[in-house]
Amino acid sequence: MQALEGIRVLDFSRVFAGPDSTQILGDHGADVIKIEEPERGDDARYFGATRDELKSQGGVSSSFLAFNRNKRSVALDLGCEAGREVARRLAAQADVVLNNFRPGAMAKWGLGYEQVKIANPRVVYATFFAYGPTGPLAHFGANDLALQAHSGLMSITGDGDRPPVRCGTAAIDLHASLGLVSAITMALFHRERTGEGQEVNTSLLLSSAHLMNYFYTDYWITGNLHARMGTANHLSVPNQAFPASDGMVIIIAPNDEMWARCVQALDPAMLGKPEFARASDRLTRRVEVVATLSAVTARFTCKELLARLGAVKVNVSKVQDIGEAADHEQLEAVGGIVTYERHGRPVKAVASPFKMSGTPASVRRPAPELGEHTVEVLTDFGVGADEIEAFRQSGAFGTAPSS
Amino acid sequence: MQALEGIRVLDFSRVFAGPDSTQILGDHGADVIKIEEPERGDDARYFGATRDELKSQGGVSSSFLAFNRNKRSVALDLGCEAGREVARRLAAQADVVLNNFRPGAMAKWGLGYEQVKIANPRVVYATFFAYGPTGPLAHFGANDLALQAHSGLMSITGDGDRPPVRCGTAAIDLHASLGLVSAITMALFHRERTGEGQEVNTSLLLSSAHLMNYFYTDYWITGNLHARMGTANHLSVPNQAFPASDGMVIIIAPNDEMWARCVQALDPAMLGKPEFARASDRLTRRVEVVATLSAVTARFTCKELLARLGAVKVNVSKVQDIGEAADHEQLEAVGGIVTYERHGRPVKAVASPFKMSGTPASVRRPAPELGEHTVEVLTDFGVGADEIEAFRQSGAFGTAPSS
Repeated sequence: MQALEGIRVLDFSRVFAGPDSTQILGDHGADVIKIEEPERGDDARYFGATRDELKSQGGVSSSFLAFNRNKRSVALDLGCEAGREVARRLAAQADVVLNNFRPGAMAKWGLGYEQVKIANPRVVYATFFAYGPTGPLAHFGANDLALQAHSGLMSITGDGDRPPVRCGTAAIDLHASLGLVSAITMALFHRERTGEGQEVNTSLLLSSAHLMNYFYTDYWITGNLHARMGTANHLSVPNQAFPASDGMVIIIAPNDEMWARCVQALDPAMLGKPEFARASDRLTRRVEVVATLSAVTARFTCKELLARLGAVKVNVSKVQDIGEAADHEQLEAVGGIVTYERHGRPVKAVASPFKMSGTPASVRRPAPELGEHTVEVLTDFGVGADEIEAFRQSGAFGTAPSS
Repeated sequence: MQALEGIRVLDFSRVFAGPDSTQILGDHGADVIKIEEPERGDDARYFGATRDELKSQGGVSSSFLAFNRNKRSVALDLGCEAGREVARRLAAQADVVLNNFRPGAMAKWGLGYEQVKIANPRVVYATFFAYGPTGPLAHFGANDLALQAHSGLMSITGDGDRPPVRCGTAAIDLHASLGLVSAITMALFHRERTGEGQEVNTSLLLSSAHLMNYFYTDYWITGNLHARMGTANHLSVPNQAFPASDGMVIIIAPNDEMWARCVQALDPAMLGKPEFARASDRLTRRVEVVATLSAVTARFTCKELLARLGAVKVNVSKVQDIGEAADHEQLEAVGGIVTYERHGRPVKAVASPFKMSGTPASVRRPAPELGEHTVEVLTDFGVGADEIEAFRQSGAFGTAPSS
């Protein structure tokens, strides 16, 4: 048995955060039904891929493959009343309904929480917002980058002598995804104990505030506005990237015992100065400590530094590129990679971000074709063949293939 | 009622990710019992704070305040058999046991999953690892920064003509926290349906791989290794920071309709060139588009750019510092801030990263003093006064105050 077996998730979300949430629910056993606009479907199907790449990947982008396994696709035109009627029929029987439209859109279509719960009081109704359902920015659009800027994350990312830069990945988006998975699962637990459904939500704003949690709290208490420090931080020295002869490594030795082991492992003569021995002195002599340690580390390869420092329990890691990281044997060793076939092509992707011993995750379906399961899902939800045909003629499914 | 009311969480974790997970469980109603080493307690109590700051903050750092509300503190010396015996008594009655020690430490103390489940088969046993429980790096220590390097995140963060930089916040740590909240809650849901407990885990490695998800998948499929691009990305133009007369704003107009609205809202004469009208042309003319748009945006204030572009639904946000972000009225408007008193001092912190309408989060306790609840908790768990005194004399509680 899987943790979410028997749970039906109706997913109206597009692009990254919403689809990532429902993929995780699907990995752990939920039946995820992805509602897509019939003409093009989820925009992420084409995201950042050239025409040639799309062709070689079975018609979809790598981003779409990253976030859409374990789902069935239903093509519905929510711009037409027949499409909305089908959506309402499905929502009335779903355990979880999820969307990331702008505030008010679902209600306009008769698919808001207040409307869905009339027929389905046990529903867990989940929404991703940009800035949240209320407040002066409620109707502002946003994406991950916009919140990296708004949240102050960008202000502390980069070199001190240059303007801010972005965190390279969509961290706020994907973090919001796990926030909503937590909320949905907590609501399912509550429903299991009490029979009661409810509405849950998160936003890029709440996600970003959670990632910036300790910076905001520190600011509210002390007024501190932290600076951009490249790879370093204000807490301790050494705690940043250092040069090796063939790359860069991170070395972190925040307390004096760890620093002493670092000194012994690398070069006691160069590094064993009494004026570097105490954490507070290393902070005030930051420039000197970093320069001296850099001169030492540059004589070793990355591999040598990892071996020497790892052996004495000093935190050390290599600054890897994406290929080295993705192909490092450790990720495979902990079950961090899933592989499956899609139209005869192998797909390799990142597994669920957590492991459950009693109810392990699984891949049961590849990322779907647009509208691939329209008839199958409607039939599962008790819609008769005649009704399906009538919906089709009313334009509910647009012009998408629906086998 | 709260979602996790009646759930007892025994938390052996220290510093950031573990304490953040259990704070979220506590916000949503769980009874969280924080086990601390009796002499100094959680290292985060002193993290990054000067002696003066500690004094003015009631003896603890802002980081500790950020992650430890809604908890009771029990001081236990796990280095002594009496301390371990108390821990085993508590674990036998807990719904959730959580730790972030190195692999094997809990088992050595008789507190591993295989040992705890004998007396407590329904337990949900949760572990944070650095690189996971198995594999060549299982026994390597790590922290957020180490995984920013190892995962490749650093390789795509920074300016293209400079070495990599870190994402300014501990994104991988805090993301792992939400991964473990999801896993624990899913396991509680499964237990509610079946009566079965289980072991769950995550790691900084799995968290980082999830944040890098679409980059790894893209690399596995296409071989692409993306570059550092400052605030920009490879998907579309404009999609980065631009200068205003009094700061910087992010402008994102990935499709041609949005770009056309951006042109109209700012300067049709300067920006309305036919060679900029198509997304693919803007990508190939990236330098020219960015230079032209920068010349236009520099004539406006941030406020003007937000008003003009927001009005026509072009994604726009200000590059804010931490103070502007924390104090922006939108965060307060969506309930993103909690305030409470601790020893008569006001504390302001970031709320749970998600909202539940039927079972809202609450603050019921401030961050605890070290060992503040040792006697109270043991009494709640059915340990008699005589036994408590005997444990004390055997050194179970170290020398911490235990009221």
